[in-house]
Amino acid sequence: MFKKILIANRGEIAVRIIRACREMGIVTVAVYSEIDKNALHTQLADESICIGSNKASDSYLNMKNILSATINSGADAIHPGFGFLSENPKFVRMCEECNIVFIGPSSDVIENMGDKSKAREMMINAGVPVVPGSDKILEDFEEVKKMADEIGFPVIIKASNGGGGKGMRIAYTSIELENAYNTARMEAKASFGDDLMYMEKYLVNPKHIEFQILADNFGNIVHLGERDCSMQRNNQKVMEEAPSSIIGQDLRELMGNTAVKGAKFVNYTSAGTMEFLLDNNNNYYFMEMNTRIQVEHPITELITGIDLIKEQIKIAANINLNYKQDNIKIHGHAIECRINAESPKKNFMPSPGEISYINLPGGYGVRNDISIYTGYKIPPNYDSMLGKIIVHANTRDEAINIMKRSLGEYIIKGVETNIDFQYDLISSNEYISGEFTTGYVSEFIKDYI
Amino acid sequence: MFKKILIANRGEIAVRIIRACREMGIVTVAVYSEIDKNALHTQLADESICIGSNKASDSYLNMKNILSATINSGADAIHPGFGFLSENPKFVRMCEECNIVFIGPSSDVIENMGDKSKAREMMINAGVPVVPGSDKILEDFEEVKKMADEIGFPVIIKASNGGGGKGMRIAYTSIELENAYNTARMEAKASFGDDLMYMEKYLVNPKHIEFQILADNFGNIVHLGERDCSMQRNNQKVMEEAPSSIIGQDLRELMGNTAVKGAKFVNYTSAGTMEFLLDNNNNYYFMEMNTRIQVEHPITELITGIDLIKEQIKIAANINLNYKQDNIKIHGHAIECRINAESPKKNFMPSPGEISYINLPGGYGVRNDISIYTGYKIPPNYDSMLGKIIVHANTRDEAINIMKRSLGEYIIKGVETNIDFQYDLISSNEYISGEFTTGYVSEFIKDYI
Repeated sequence: MFKKILIANRGEIAVRIIRACREMGIVTVAVYSEIDKNALHTQLADESICIGSNKASDSYLNMKNILSATINSGADAIHPGFGFLSENPKFVRMCEECNIVFIGPSSDVIENMGDKSKAREMMINAGVPVVPGSDKILEDFEEVKKMADEIGFPVIIKASNGGGGKGMRIAYTSIELENAYNTARMEAKASFGDDLMYMEKYLVNPKHIEFQILADNFGNIVHLGERDCSMQRNNQKVMEEAPSSIIGQDLRELMGNTAVKGAKFVNYTSAGTMEFLLDNNNNYYFMEMNTRIQVEHPITELITGIDLIKEQIKIAANINLNYKQDNIKIHGHAIECRINAESPKKNFMPSPGEISYINLPGGYGVRNDISIYTGYKIPPNYDSMLGKIIVHANTRDEAINIMKRSLGEYIIKGVETNIDFQYDLISSNEYISGEFTTGYVSEFIKDYI
Repeated sequence: MFKKILIANRGEIAVRIIRACREMGIVTVAVYSEIDKNALHTQLADESICIGSNKASDSYLNMKNILSATINSGADAIHPGFGFLSENPKFVRMCEECNIVFIGPSSDVIENMGDKSKAREMMINAGVPVVPGSDKILEDFEEVKKMADEIGFPVIIKASNGGGGKGMRIAYTSIELENAYNTARMEAKASFGDDLMYMEKYLVNPKHIEFQILADNFGNIVHLGERDCSMQRNNQKVMEEAPSSIIGQDLRELMGNTAVKGAKFVNYTSAGTMEFLLDNNNNYYFMEMNTRIQVEHPITELITGIDLIKEQIKIAANINLNYKQDNIKIHGHAIECRINAESPKKNFMPSPGEISYINLPGGYGVRNDISIYTGYKIPPNYDSMLGKIIVHANTRDEAINIMKRSLGEYIIKGVETNIDFQYDLISSNEYISGEFTTGYVSEFIKDYI
């Protein structure tokens, strides 16, 4: 087992990883930017090293500084968390060259899954259903037009190397097509340096359903059931739950087996997520694979009793999974709400500042994963997420009730938060029905603001 | 179902009950003494009523004021929590006369189990093993001597109406017997108004093992496995765990069935606890039955997934248990540490004062049940317990590791606490071995102070 792990991240995920390491008896090294000197992860770790100034490119994205910190601290391994360098194949290769274990899949897998058209192609070869669309880069508008006619409107044009909603346009009719293609191309060129474009059928208001995968270095691979992440604003997840209220055991097994098949085909190792879109006829399509731990991983932990961070660390240390698919049982229902420093009434504008008071909810079924404390100054430089509240109960109804009373107890003073927004959202009939799709949150916001 | 429940208690158990009610959609009424005006339970409840001055006898033990508050607020039912009036048959009869539902067993059961020699007699009739000893009140020293010769030394002489360690003396030899009898009698007379005494075999360093019982008003009754509460200081539990590390499935079933048999015999309803002493030959003896919810109930909740407060409320509302013994499964291992405002190095002297800062542990497997907040003034009038931290994991080793890192993260400023003491205690080899008995904590303290 590793003796010392460096955590190349900040915020609540860094805290989460430090906690897992401590429980495993592994010494932790935090890295921090100047403004994060007093951050919780910096304080909690056994050691901490400043790796640069506040700009992420100078610190949390600064590969050389992070590798130097790792070597200087004598750490055996790096846990990248999510975001930042967690899906950067170049960084993983640098780790490999320096003989430092990167806690995650191989650089090749990360590279293949990061390239959206490549990932799509591999999944087709694996026999995983993908959204109907172009299996290769579309050379010009003639090809775009032909493909749109073939798969039918609406369509979505996507940059092959895109992400975060950029280089992406929807066309509902043939009239909109050329303009959509041209603006997506320009945005892609500006954002990612190339304008390689492909096209997919655009699914109107699908469910976002993702399967958690765990795979060791000896060919053992399982899924841990699904998460329903359809509650999204601008492609950002807001609230997640597991299991999905509209997925029965048959569909779970079918999709789960597909997810395992796809991950196996690409030689996946570590924790990863196969994301699917599910339409209202129970057709599901591969969307992308996330080759890292995810924000919403705790809901899977609560319904399976498996600590995903510890599993990642054990897998990276060449320990094999000590259970098979049949041993994994789903217990009850879990919901996560992300707690952000932002102003929902001001178009979710971030609200940095100093936390003057916190009252955390607690009691039966409540888990808090946060990176704040009284007196902590939220820097304006990074993500506005302060943490998550996660609840677990035997039934979905009970979980909703626990979440509502917990959000009701939650007090953060000094900055604005989305706590009340989350309360209103989870209290809405559409959420309670369980039938919400990816379009719901933006509909809800229209009436809300 | 009840529309409104009055909680006749304070501190973390009042908060616990308010949370359960809120999740069930039941309006809550808190009662408070003058000094508890800003207590968390007073603030969290939907309504709150001052019931008297700070002395418990004027407020939390003031039956008339509590019944008036109940009637005036229009509450249907009273939840008594633990301590205070929770095991007072007179209060329960007053509730019954006022047509207010007392959330707990009947006054007769509470009265019978509160009378230690009566409880012992009933358990003998039920076929539950009791510690060898006198089955009736011992009239004089001649009878005491005869009984001691019969059961063998050491023996313990106990006041029939005693409690809290008072009116109780151990004699290891016949020489000590007369003095022990006389001092116990005098103390009993002074403390409880009578000197009715009985005697039991004194078990040296047994395990304290208790079984959680749930029984509805329709004859359905189950046990939820055991709690090991052997970590005690002066008969006060310090740290509890479930299941016990030394009890296998066979003994669990045997003791569990005995617990159910005893509770059934006395017509028990609601949540209750059958406490046993277990010697190192796996002989177990009924000690007493607690006819209320207990401080350590969350560890049972975590390993069974059953919310005991909600079950109490449902049972009181004449809803039947919707599971049978076979449906109850034990998942993993849970540990609770009580967090007290006290100074372990100063013989655990209470440390009231104002809380100036709190950092709560969180993350995987951690539950916090507390009644404090930043700025809260702990009054000197009541118990020093501020709350509990409860952890849950697949294995005992993992639970210990989560508890250790959680106690390490826990910060309370402004008053002294037992957090570091609990950390040292749970880190000790004897605790980790799982073989500790009721004598262990006082041994540990000898080296500690």
